[in-house]
Amino acid sequence: MTSTPDDCTAALDLPGIREAVEQCLHEFLTAKEQTATRRRLPPTAARSLRSFLDSGGKRLRPLLCAIGWYAAGSPGPLPEAVVRTASALEFFHAFALIHDDVMDRSETRRGRPTVHRAFARQYADRTPDAAAEHLGTGAAILVGDLALCWSDELLHSADIPADRLRAVRRLSDLMREEAMYGQYLDLLAPTTPAHDIRVPLTVIRYKTAKYTCERPLHIGAALAGADPPVLRACTAYALPLGEAFQLRDDLLGVFGNPDRTGKSRLDDLREGKRTVLMTLAHQRANPAQLKTLHELVGRPGLTDHDADRIRTVILETGAHDEAERMIRHRHDRAQRALDRAPFPPDVVHALRHVARRATHRDL
Amino acid sequence: MTSTPDDCTAALDLPGIREAVEQCLHEFLTAKEQTATRRRLPPTAARSLRSFLDSGGKRLRPLLCAIGWYAAGSPGPLPEAVVRTASALEFFHAFALIHDDVMDRSETRRGRPTVHRAFARQYADRTPDAAAEHLGTGAAILVGDLALCWSDELLHSADIPADRLRAVRRLSDLMREEAMYGQYLDLLAPTTPAHDIRVPLTVIRYKTAKYTCERPLHIGAALAGADPPVLRACTAYALPLGEAFQLRDDLLGVFGNPDRTGKSRLDDLREGKRTVLMTLAHQRANPAQLKTLHELVGRPGLTDHDADRIRTVILETGAHDEAERMIRHRHDRAQRALDRAPFPPDVVHALRHVARRATHRDL
Repeated sequence: MTSTPDDCTAALDLPGIREAVEQCLHEFLTAKEQTATRRRLPPTAARSLRSFLDSGGKRLRPLLCAIGWYAAGSPGPLPEAVVRTASALEFFHAFALIHDDVMDRSETRRGRPTVHRAFARQYADRTPDAAAEHLGTGAAILVGDLALCWSDELLHSADIPADRLRAVRRLSDLMREEAMYGQYLDLLAPTTPAHDIRVPLTVIRYKTAKYTCERPLHIGAALAGADPPVLRACTAYALPLGEAFQLRDDLLGVFGNPDRTGKSRLDDLREGKRTVLMTLAHQRANPAQLKTLHELVGRPGLTDHDADRIRTVILETGAHDEAERMIRHRHDRAQRALDRAPFPPDVVHALRHVARRATHRDL
Repeated sequence: MTSTPDDCTAALDLPGIREAVEQCLHEFLTAKEQTATRRRLPPTAARSLRSFLDSGGKRLRPLLCAIGWYAAGSPGPLPEAVVRTASALEFFHAFALIHDDVMDRSETRRGRPTVHRAFARQYADRTPDAAAEHLGTGAAILVGDLALCWSDELLHSADIPADRLRAVRRLSDLMREEAMYGQYLDLLAPTTPAHDIRVPLTVIRYKTAKYTCERPLHIGAALAGADPPVLRACTAYALPLGEAFQLRDDLLGVFGNPDRTGKSRLDDLREGKRTVLMTLAHQRANPAQLKTLHELVGRPGLTDHDADRIRTVILETGAHDEAERMIRHRHDRAQRALDRAPFPPDVVHALRHVARRATHRDL
C-alpha cells in the first residue's frame, strides 16, 4: 500500500489493513490448532477463538493502531511487525469480551451465543444442565486466558527494535490495566448511587476512550518512534471520540435494531447496566418516572413491553436528547483536534472517517 | 550469596532466594497500589493479590527457576533479572490458582476464603447475596487477569539480553499453554469415564510436571544460556518429580490434615475431582465399593461420614498403596536423574532436597 499526501481519499487502505490483520490472526490460530493436535491436546481454544473472530467485530483497535503508525509519518506499506501488533490488540479484545460476557452473564454477542453459552450447549449432551453451565463458564474463562497469552505472544514475537518495543510495552501495559480497571468499575457500578454520573463517566473514560481509542493509536505511533506532540494529538482526538463511541453504543443497546447490532436490546436493561444514558434518566426523572425505572431496570425477566416503558422514560426525561448532544459535542471536539494535529493528510482523512462511522452509526 | 562445590550443604541459599522473590513481588504490588491511588483507581486488585500471596504458598516455581539458573553453572549472587523472572512465575501461579478456584467453586485456599469468596463477603453489605456472589466471581476473574498481565510485565521489564530473552519467552509461552491445556482437561475430566487413567495422567503431566517443575527449571536455565544437555537433564528430573508431587497433593487432598494443608479434605471429594488416586479406586473397586463411589463422590453436601466411607474404599481397594508406590517410583527416578545430571554439586544437593520435600510431605 502506498500513500501520498495529494491522494487523500484513497490514501489509507483501511480494508487492506483489516484484511492483513484477519490473515495474521487466522494464520496464528491455524498454527496453534496444528500444534495442539500434534501434541494430542484439544484444539478447542483455537477453534473457539476463530469462531468468535469470524462472528464479526469492527476491528477498531487494530485499525487505529495501524493509523497511529501512519500518524507518526511512516510511509509505504504496513510492515509485518505493525500488523502483528495490531492483531495482538484484537486478541486482547477477544479476551476482554469473552471474560466480560462471563461476568455480565450475557447470552448473545454479535448475534451468536456467547462463548460460555456455546460451550455449555456443547457439553449439555454429556453432563446435566447445571454442570454443563458450569463447565461452559470454566472453558470460556480459559479460552479468554489463552487469548490474553496469545495476544502477548503475537506482540513479543513481532520484529520490533528494542527501544521502540520498550515504548510499545509501556503503553500496552497501561492499556491492559486501563481496560481491567474500567471493567472492575463497571462491574461494581450497580452498587453505587444510580444518579451519580461520575461512575459511568469514569468507566467509559477507561474502558472505551483510553483502552479502545487512545492506546491503540499510541501503540501504533510508538512503533513508528512518534515524538510527544504526535502522541498528544492522538490523545486530543481519541478521548472525546472514544466517549462518543461508547455513548452511541449505549444508545444502540437500548434503542438499536438487534438485527443490525447483533445484540439483544433487552440485555443492558435486564442487567441494569449503569450507563451514562441511564444515569441521565435517573437524574431527570420525576417521582412517577423514577418509580418505573426502579421497578423495571435490572429485572431479569424484563419483557418487551417493560423495555418500551423504560424507553418512554428515557425519551420523556430528555436523557436521550442529552446523550445525543453529548455525542455531538464529543464528535466535534475530536474533529477539531484533527484540525491542528501534526498528522499527514491521509491520516487526518482516515481519522475523520473513523469518527463519523463510530459516532453516527445507525445500526 | 556465594556457592562453592565443597560447601554443598550451605550452598544454595533457598530461604534467601525466597526472601528476594517476596521482596520483588511486594515492591511491585506497592508500586501498583500507589499508581492506582494516584490515578483515583481502585487499589483493590493489588491489595487482593498481596493478601493472596501473604496467605502462604511454597514458592516452588520461583525456587526452581532460581535453581535452574544455577544448574547452568552460573556463579555468585542471584541477579535482579533472575529474581524478577522467578517472581513473574509466582504472579502467573497466583493467576492460575485464582481462576482455578473460580472454575472449581472452591471455598477455601491456604486456610482462608478463596479470592472470589472473599470479594463476595465484602460486597454482601451493599447488595443482595446472589448479586454479591456474582460480583465476587467477576472481581476474582479480573484480579486473576491482572495477575497474568503483571506476570508478563515483570518478565518483560527484567533486564535480560535479547537472545536469552527469546529463549525464555519461548519457554514461558509453552509453560502458559501447558498450564491452561492441563486445566482445560482437568475441567472436562468429570465428563470422561471414571476408570480411564489416561485422563488424570495427562492432566498431571501438563498441569504439574511440565508447568510446575520442568518449565520453571528450563526458564531459569535459559536465563543463564544453558545448552541442550542441561535442559534435558532438567526434564529428566522434573517430569517424574512433578508427577510425584501431584500424586502426593491428591493424597493429601483426601487424607491430609486440613490444619496443616490449609485445604478442606472434603473439597476434592465433593467436587468429584478426577485424580489418579480416585481413578485407581474406580479401577479396583468391586461392585459394592463402586456403588459407594458412585453414590458419594461428587455429592455437594458430602459429610465427614461420607468422606470416611470413600476413604475406606480407597484404602481397601489398594488404591492408596498404589498411589504411594507411584510416588516412590517417580521420586526415585527423579533422584537417579540427578546422579547423571551435568549440574554443579550445590544444585544437585538443592534439587534432592526439593524432591524429598515435595514428595514426602506429611502435611
